Amino acid sequence: MAVGYNTISMGTGRPEFHPAKPRPGLEHYISEAGKAVIAGINQQGDLIDEAFIGNFQASLFNKQAHLGGFIPMIDPALAGKPAMRVEGACASGGLALASAIRSVLAGTGDVVLAMGVEVQNTLKAIYGADVLAAAGWYQKRKSGHAYFFPGQFSNRAGAYYERFGRDYTRKGLARWFKNAIENARLCPTAQEFENKVVDLEALALTEPNGKFFVDHLNVYDCSKVSDGASAILVLSEEGLKKCGINPEDAVEIAGWSQVARDITADPEDLTVMSATRLAVAKALKSAGISMNQVSTVETHDCFTIAGVLGVEAMGLAAHGQGAAFVADGATARDGVMPINTTGGLIGWGHPTGATGVHQAVTVWEQLTGKAGAAQIIINPDKPYALSINMGGDDVTVVAIVYKKNH
Amino acid sequence: MAVGYNTISMGTGRPEFHPAKPRPGLEHYISEAGKAVIAGINQQGDLIDEAFIGNFQASLFNKQAHLGGFIPMIDPALAGKPAMRVEGACASGGLALASAIRSVLAGTGDVVLAMGVEVQNTLKAIYGADVLAAAGWYQKRKSGHAYFFPGQFSNRAGAYYERFGRDYTRKGLARWFKNAIENARLCPTAQEFENKVVDLEALALTEPNGKFFVDHLNVYDCSKVSDGASAILVLSEEGLKKCGINPEDAVEIAGWSQVARDITADPEDLTVMSATRLAVAKALKSAGISMNQVSTVETHDCFTIAGVLGVEAMGLAAHGQGAAFVADGATARDGVMPINTTGGLIGWGHPTGATGVHQAVTVWEQLTGKAGAAQIIINPDKPYALSINMGGDDVTVVAIVYKKNH
Repeated sequence: MAVGYNTISMGTGRPEFHPAKPRPGLEHYISEAGKAVIAGINQQGDLIDEAFIGNFQASLFNKQAHLGGFIPMIDPALAGKPAMRVEGACASGGLALASAIRSVLAGTGDVVLAMGVEVQNTLKAIYGADVLAAAGWYQKRKSGHAYFFPGQFSNRAGAYYERFGRDYTRKGLARWFKNAIENARLCPTAQEFENKVVDLEALALTEPNGKFFVDHLNVYDCSKVSDGASAILVLSEEGLKKCGINPEDAVEIAGWSQVARDITADPEDLTVMSATRLAVAKALKSAGISMNQVSTVETHDCFTIAGVLGVEAMGLAAHGQGAAFVADGATARDGVMPINTTGGLIGWGHPTGATGVHQAVTVWEQLTGKAGAAQIIINPDKPYALSINMGGDDVTVVAIVYKKNH
Repeated sequence: MAVGYNTISMGTGRPEFHPAKPRPGLEHYISEAGKAVIAGINQQGDLIDEAFIGNFQASLFNKQAHLGGFIPMIDPALAGKPAMRVEGACASGGLALASAIRSVLAGTGDVVLAMGVEVQNTLKAIYGADVLAAAGWYQKRKSGHAYFFPGQFSNRAGAYYERFGRDYTRKGLARWFKNAIENARLCPTAQEFENKVVDLEALALTEPNGKFFVDHLNVYDCSKVSDGASAILVLSEEGLKKCGINPEDAVEIAGWSQVARDITADPEDLTVMSATRLAVAKALKSAGISMNQVSTVETHDCFTIAGVLGVEAMGLAAHGQGAAFVADGATARDGVMPINTTGGLIGWGHPTGATGVHQAVTVWEQLTGKAGAAQIIINPDKPYALSINMGGDDVTVVAIVYKKNH
């Protein structure tokens, strides 16, 4: 995997963002990310064999489906080649990567473009919430919160508070927010890059208010509403050679998994993300490694509580101890397991269909020393990284294990 | 490929269909088709490794995205396995098949479920037309017909009339309609199964009226608005053995192609479907055969004119001679190349995201002698069949070549 690119994550918080002014559309983001990747292989677009584009809800946000048809718009060299949209709610980007991996394994592609895109600031938040609710079961939503997804994770947070202690948990969630913003401040494409708040933990501890939002989470517990695209190439050994990519500029995909949980079924235990746990276990097994060999993780923190439950799903902390693990700084950039080193969904942003690909780009940057001010040191004894991309409430999960070359 | 299943294509024309009464939803169709396939392998759902589900616009028709999450609902044995929605407008079903083929080639699956589903009678025709318009470029649509897609193909028909003669062409289109309905009358799941019209060609020659619909096509030139699902298994040799499927009950996938044309670009020549032509050529090349070895074709007749242009794209008739080829009966079930032997999109129905899979199921039935009253005789010297599934106006095309076993 090589030649990653992220557009800016555009939305509230970015100085370029004005809610009332015209903004770039889907076409712009697809084009920007695609052209950047082709520039990264010396304009040899003809070397790209296939393309997969992850997108969740352009049908509603942009009145546009059939996004595979925009791939040949990037570069005439892509005309006539296979291009396909894949969708699994907020795991759509991860599914684009999983599809690109299958393509390379199948031998149908040596050089495969995996892209994700979402342009969701076209709707006001409450209508946007309605659109995003389609990630869950529509029949269930009829009796759910107006803010359906925040409601689902608010329920998870409430269950966790009840079982393990409210103040204890909220300290962990507040630290998660602080880490996210501090990491985002190191990454120029991050939506929270220019966040200047001094006491982040105090802000994050603002009392949730169910009258205006949901019962157990506040807006700082939520990921951002973002426009953006990310793209990267998945390549065979032959593809790397064809493109003239140096091994030190690429990372190896060492293992991966893709899991689906029944969208119509309630989670057995609200304090456990069982599909995420299964996906991580399968991905590590597929790579033949344990979490002890992993240097950094990009995890799907659509909400702070999803970050904490993810830490437990990875086995970094026992059930109920994830909040303390985070509160103690273990997941900060100088902690034992740096997580979401460019801010994750809360700090970098969450252009839903692009997020899985953004995670892969961040991992690629970290393992090839291209992360700029956000760069962490990769311990040579731990040459692996992990990404976890989740769609819906722990329904579709794609987990990928990456290995640093050399 | 084996164990195919089609639900009824539900919509106007079916006696079970009442516009005002509650009808089965997405969940029902996914479940019916999925359970039927699992029943076909003696309830061994655990043997299915991966699943791909093609769907175009459930986001708008049913306020539901993330259809991969419904796969584990079919059977608990599917929980935790990879399941993904793929989308390329009306080629979504073909993309599910292409994905399943990649999965088998990649070795990630020996037994892979390819399904397609659409439930589109939830909206009135004019609103439905708006939803389906997302298959084309939204920016282009602003200046297009209210019935956007019929408008696009009306333009193609108009250009063909002008170049090759109006009466000449409309005779071919009328015969296309007649063949479609006659074939549908032989297939109990077809939407036009109970069509009793005596003079089909006369009906099809009704003058188009641009005041009420579009300039160059009438409603008989259009495919049906349908609810339905289709499913089939794509298997490796090992998968066939595991499932205990006899070779004579399976067909070989001998070749395939997937093509994308720039959705933002107008066709160079309205009387040519260039992406379809390219896809057919690539699929035949991939199978190492010519059209002379093909016994039957399932082609994407979203409109009668697409049927005629498809005939030319396959090289069955020269440019401008497709209408005569059809009018002469060459594509009828007793013609030199029987096309759409269960009625195609105009006769059987067009549950958009399911259509590509429905085509594969029909081919599988014909090549394994399971097509009932619709069965044609397969010439032993021509053991191949071809399917062509198109998304948008000749934008995404999946072509598959199948071979009869023995």
